[in-house]
Amino acid sequence: MTLTKKDVVSNVLRGRTSMPRAEAKAFAPANIALCKYWGKRNEELNLPVTSSLSLSLGPLGSEVVLATCEGSDRVELNGEAVPERAPFAARLFEFLDLFRPTPATHFNVIARNTIPTAAGFASSASGFAALVTALNDLFGWGLDKRACSILARLGSGSASRSVYEGFVEWHAGSREDGMDSYAEPLDARWPELRLGLLTISSETKKTGSRPGMKHTIETSPLYAAWPAKATRDLAELKSAIVARDFERLGRTAESNALAMHATMIAAWPTLLYWLPESVRMMQRIVAMREDGVPLFFTMDAGPNIKLLFLEQSEPRIREVFPDVQVVAPFSAYR
Amino acid sequence: MTLTKKDVVSNVLRGRTSMPRAEAKAFAPANIALCKYWGKRNEELNLPVTSSLSLSLGPLGSEVVLATCEGSDRVELNGEAVPERAPFAARLFEFLDLFRPTPATHFNVIARNTIPTAAGFASSASGFAALVTALNDLFGWGLDKRACSILARLGSGSASRSVYEGFVEWHAGSREDGMDSYAEPLDARWPELRLGLLTISSETKKTGSRPGMKHTIETSPLYAAWPAKATRDLAELKSAIVARDFERLGRTAESNALAMHATMIAAWPTLLYWLPESVRMMQRIVAMREDGVPLFFTMDAGPNIKLLFLEQSEPRIREVFPDVQVVAPFSAYR
Repeated sequence: MTLTKKDVVSNVLRGRTSMPRAEAKAFAPANIALCKYWGKRNEELNLPVTSSLSLSLGPLGSEVVLATCEGSDRVELNGEAVPERAPFAARLFEFLDLFRPTPATHFNVIARNTIPTAAGFASSASGFAALVTALNDLFGWGLDKRACSILARLGSGSASRSVYEGFVEWHAGSREDGMDSYAEPLDARWPELRLGLLTISSETKKTGSRPGMKHTIETSPLYAAWPAKATRDLAELKSAIVARDFERLGRTAESNALAMHATMIAAWPTLLYWLPESVRMMQRIVAMREDGVPLFFTMDAGPNIKLLFLEQSEPRIREVFPDVQVVAPFSAYR
Repeated sequence: MTLTKKDVVSNVLRGRTSMPRAEAKAFAPANIALCKYWGKRNEELNLPVTSSLSLSLGPLGSEVVLATCEGSDRVELNGEAVPERAPFAARLFEFLDLFRPTPATHFNVIARNTIPTAAGFASSASGFAALVTALNDLFGWGLDKRACSILARLGSGSASRSVYEGFVEWHAGSREDGMDSYAEPLDARWPELRLGLLTISSETKKTGSRPGMKHTIETSPLYAAWPAKATRDLAELKSAIVARDFERLGRTAESNALAMHATMIAAWPTLLYWLPESVRMMQRIVAMREDGVPLFFTMDAGPNIKLLFLEQSEPRIREVFPDVQVVAPFSAYR
C-alpha cells in the first residue's frame, strides 16, 4: 500500500487536540546545504536517497502570518496578492489541504521572504517550515520540532531542515512511512563562519529543483555514483565541523555542489543551471584560493553562488565581490 | 613484467628492414571524437578504458616533413624553430627516441598545423599520426595502417584515430601489449555532415588532456559511471551512422561530451575547462535547437565548441555564429 501525505499527517497528529486561535505568526530561516539533498526515494513523501547537511541563514528566511478565513484560500507574498492559479499558490493550497479540520476551513496566508524567491535561495524551504510552525501554533497541537520537521518535509524536502538554526542534519531514514526522516540540529556553533550570497540572476528558474532532481535521476548516467559521494561528504563535513577545520569544510562543500551539478550536466537534455557569470565567479573564487584566500563556494539548483569563508576574510571578499550579501549564521543565534 | 613503448615498437617493426630515404612528407587529419577517449587502463602504452569514435577533419590537421640529420634533433612548427626544452619539443624527441636506428641518428622535423595548436583542437593527434606515417615512409618499413595506428597511439592516444579519414573507431582492445588497441575506419560516408569549429580561446590550456584525464580518474567520484556510458554511446553512434539518423548522432555526441565534462567538473580540485563564453554558446545552441534547428555540439578537454549540423543548416548557423569555421569532413575524401 502506498502511503500518502495525508496518512503521514494523520499519523503525526494522532491523539492531538486542536485548540485553535485567531492568528499565528512564525519565522523560519532559509538554509544552504553543504551536503546536498539530490534525489528522492519516495516522490510523494519527499523521502531522500541520502542524508544531507545544511546551515541556516539566521535572519534570512520566511515569515508567515496565518489565520483561518471564510470562502477560499488567499495568499499574499511580499505585500502582493498571489493569483490562486499561480504555481506558488496552487502548491501552497494543496499543502494546506492536508491540514483543514473541515473542508470548509480556509486559510489566509501572509508571507514575506527576506531572501529572493525561487532563485536558488531556498525560499520554499523556509516558507514551508514557517507555515508548519504557524499551523502548529494556530491549532495549538503542541508538536515538537521533530514532528514539525516531518510535516515541513511534506511541503518541500529541504524545509525539513529549516525548522532549526545553525548546522542541521536531515536523516534520510529508511522507513517507508518516513517517520525516521527528519532533521536535527548539530550541537555545534561556529561564530566566525560566514556565508556570502552572490545573486547572479533572481529570475525564476526555467526548471525547478523538484523536476530537475527527477530528470537527473531518470536520465543522468552519472547519478548512480552520487549517493556514495553524498554519504562520504556528510561524514567528512561533520568531522570538519567538530574539528573546526574550515579548509576541510569548504573543500567538501564545494566538491559536493560541483558533483551535484555534474550529475545534472550529464542529464539529457542537459540541466545546465550555470550562467556565463556563474562560471566567471567560480573561476574568480578558485583564483583567489590559489592566491591564499580561504574561500570556497556552494551552489544549489540555480545559477547563484554562495561563498563560504571566515570572518577575517570578509574585507577581502567584499573588495572582490562588492555586491555580496554577507550572512553570519551564528550571530543572531538566540 | 611491465611493457614499455619500446617493446611495442620492437614488436611492430620485427622482421622489417629499413630502406631509408633522404626525406619523407606526410599529412594526417585532426579528429573530433563523437564518443570520447577519457581514461587509460595503461598510462605507458596509452591503452584506453573504452573504445571511442571520431570524425576526421579532412584538410585540417598536421603536415610533417621528416629527415635524418647530424648533431641533435630539431623541430620547426608553423615556420618557427621550437626551443628543444619546450614541452612540445621534449615530447616529440622522446617519441623519436623509440625509432632511432642508432643513438646517433637525429631528426629534423618541419611541422605545420592547419588547426590551432593545443587549444582543444587535437593537434597532437594529427601531429603524431603524420609523424608515424612520415617515419614509415622515411625508413621504408611498409607498415600497414593498423600498425601505424598502434605506433601513433604511443605518441598520443587519439592519434591512433588520425591515421584515417571519415568516421573512425578506436578499439579499446584487452591485450596487455595493446596489439589489439588500434583504430579502423567505419565503412560509411555522410557527405551532408558538417562540423563547425568555434574558437573561444586559442590559449594553451592550463591543464592538458593527459594530466586532466589522470586527475579525473584519480579524484572524480563520478568517473566510475563513465565507462558504461561511453560503451552505450559508441553503439548508439554506430547505429545512428548506419541509419543516417542525424538527431540520434547529434544527441548522443552532445550527451557524451557533457558527461565527460561532468566527470571533470566533479574532480577535486575541479577541472572546469569551460569559460563563460563556452556556457553562453552552449545555451545559444540549446535555444536554437528548441527553435527547431537540428544543431548539436561536442567539446574536448578545453573551452572550445564544435558544432554538428547538416549542410542545409549552414546558412542559419553562419548567421548566428559568424566566426564559425565550417568543415565538410567527407568533401575532400579521396
